[in-house]
Amino acid sequence: MRGDRVILKAVINNIVFRAFSSSSIQSSLSNQFGRLKHLGFDLPDVWPPATCSQPSITPYFDGPSAEIIDGKSIAAKIKSQVASEILKMKDAVGKQPGLAVVLVGERSDSHTFVRTKMKACDEVGISSSVIELHADCTEDEVFHVVSNLNKDPLIHGVLVQLPLPKHLDEEKILNVVNPEKDVDGFHPFNMGSLAMKGREPFFIPCAAKSCIDLLLRSGVEIAGKNAVVIGRSKLVGLPVSLLLQRHHATVSVVHSFTKNAQELTREADIIITDVGVPNMIRGNWLRSGAVVIDAGTNAVKDPSRKNGFHLTGDVCFEEAVRVASAITPVPGGLGPVTISMLLSNTLDSAKRAYDFV
Amino acid sequence: MRGDRVILKAVINNIVFRAFSSSSIQSSLSNQFGRLKHLGFDLPDVWPPATCSQPSITPYFDGPSAEIIDGKSIAAKIKSQVASEILKMKDAVGKQPGLAVVLVGERSDSHTFVRTKMKACDEVGISSSVIELHADCTEDEVFHVVSNLNKDPLIHGVLVQLPLPKHLDEEKILNVVNPEKDVDGFHPFNMGSLAMKGREPFFIPCAAKSCIDLLLRSGVEIAGKNAVVIGRSKLVGLPVSLLLQRHHATVSVVHSFTKNAQELTREADIIITDVGVPNMIRGNWLRSGAVVIDAGTNAVKDPSRKNGFHLTGDVCFEEAVRVASAITPVPGGLGPVTISMLLSNTLDSAKRAYDFV
Repeated sequence: MRGDRVILKAVINNIVFRAFSSSSIQSSLSNQFGRLKHLGFDLPDVWPPATCSQPSITPYFDGPSAEIIDGKSIAAKIKSQVASEILKMKDAVGKQPGLAVVLVGERSDSHTFVRTKMKACDEVGISSSVIELHADCTEDEVFHVVSNLNKDPLIHGVLVQLPLPKHLDEEKILNVVNPEKDVDGFHPFNMGSLAMKGREPFFIPCAAKSCIDLLLRSGVEIAGKNAVVIGRSKLVGLPVSLLLQRHHATVSVVHSFTKNAQELTREADIIITDVGVPNMIRGNWLRSGAVVIDAGTNAVKDPSRKNGFHLTGDVCFEEAVRVASAITPVPGGLGPVTISMLLSNTLDSAKRAYDFV
Repeated sequence: MRGDRVILKAVINNIVFRAFSSSSIQSSLSNQFGRLKHLGFDLPDVWPPATCSQPSITPYFDGPSAEIIDGKSIAAKIKSQVASEILKMKDAVGKQPGLAVVLVGERSDSHTFVRTKMKACDEVGISSSVIELHADCTEDEVFHVVSNLNKDPLIHGVLVQLPLPKHLDEEKILNVVNPEKDVDGFHPFNMGSLAMKGREPFFIPCAAKSCIDLLLRSGVEIAGKNAVVIGRSKLVGLPVSLLLQRHHATVSVVHSFTKNAQELTREADIIITDVGVPNMIRGNWLRSGAVVIDAGTNAVKDPSRKNGFHLTGDVCFEEAVRVASAITPVPGGLGPVTISMLLSNTLDSAKRAYDFV
């Protein structure tokens, strides 16, 4: 089975490579007489599979093993701070923050994620609600639901659970969320405000904000450091590369078209991975003493587990922990902090709405 | 005088360095108990001065001297294409594109830029108008003017000439421009849409779009290449780094806090500079065969000239031309293309408004 998967991946890579090889992209972009495609083509990032089964030869970190950044305890701290601020807010203005999640379809993973978010809201005193829509609902029905939530004064955060069924246009739907309630930070107005010096978005995407939070809490200096972000999704890669720039790091963004990914990564003081390939980043990708934030959460088949899988990051932890100076584990690293950041974003929104400092 | 300027710059650098040195930034960001400043501090990019007076020892490019990318002739081509499309549009729908520029205050450079834009509009058949406001006008007056232009069906492009007088909030004013008429591409909605894969902004900032245009027209392969963008303004550095990523280059953004700027730049296949320091990028910053787009337009005192100055780029052209495989000169490189791109953006807007393909 594993062999089959590797072959399948190789075939996909080959097709993507042939279909979108640099020269074929170029020839279709560079027609000197027609209109040029200034924006480029949207191409999928297809990464080669990787495993940690053969440990790499690494220049082991001279000092002690890396500090393991404890996401669970940091998440608990953030939650407790959010809970205490909500109590104060209730006392002062008699209101609590409200989060609404729009959930379309029956994907079991989405339902699990939403339940986790609801439970977390409950723990800190945020009132939460889920609006469930059928998998074959129309775009207009989603627009209608989102518009109503935009208008509801008791709702401060509106979140459309992704991915949406294929027949719905994700971009269009996310555009309808009021940027002032866009606790996921995926509205282009918020992403643009994050990108542009001198501006402040209403919200920063939770996972990206959590990466910076972990660096700051761990006392990692960011300004003037070389940072490599591997992956470029709107959840992590893109916003965290923008955030690191706003903290004056020198940022390089590595993706599946990068030819010297390992070499570039080895130059970095700070590495943030958002790939989705278990164990892709090996120990010999890291400079001794680098700080590693692993945003990958990959389910790997594991017959020894009750549920049939275990979670692993993009980084080969066993190798990296001997090279890095600090690293987040998976699970127990970025994941819990990301959930707590959603609570913090929702609280911030309510504070703005009620003018409560 | 020159010596004074160097000393003054050194003093400024030193103050900025002391005020915002990495550790002081860090300590004010990483308070574990208060709220963290996830967005970082906005700090000015203060670059050290540089000159081309002592030629550097460079590994001269083995082949012939670099191709000089001729911005003037490319701009002429774009203008002629825009003009011919406008003629077709007039024939088909009886309308022409309209551009309005809001000009606040008396800065002579701004007035010159605006005149150049108006003249270019005239040449291709775009109707243009300037709304002049007094230097001490209020924000509300500017809002009022911009709102009226947003509503005017004969205006397809609204441009607020920057910089604005200090008492006006640039961000607030740019937010008021309808993103569908924002031909400068500075609205966060457009910048966010440029950043986010799968989205298409209404407009891409003219200078950044011109950089990509020059690369494409020169047949430069972008996908999979290493690109270094030096500088991070919203005019060039930021949007061009996002655009290069959408073309699947591996992009590193270098700024004044970068410690190994020269070393990083030497690794790049494509270099785009947006610094504002004459001749900062020396020949020994470049890899043999690199492609260089110079977005700097720096006025350097020159008593031998009638007007008392000459224009020079961020790149030491005399050195770079012997190392690079292609390079834009200053003047006559990016500048003229940027103006023609404004015309092209305005035409695109009118085409959308009249549903004219």
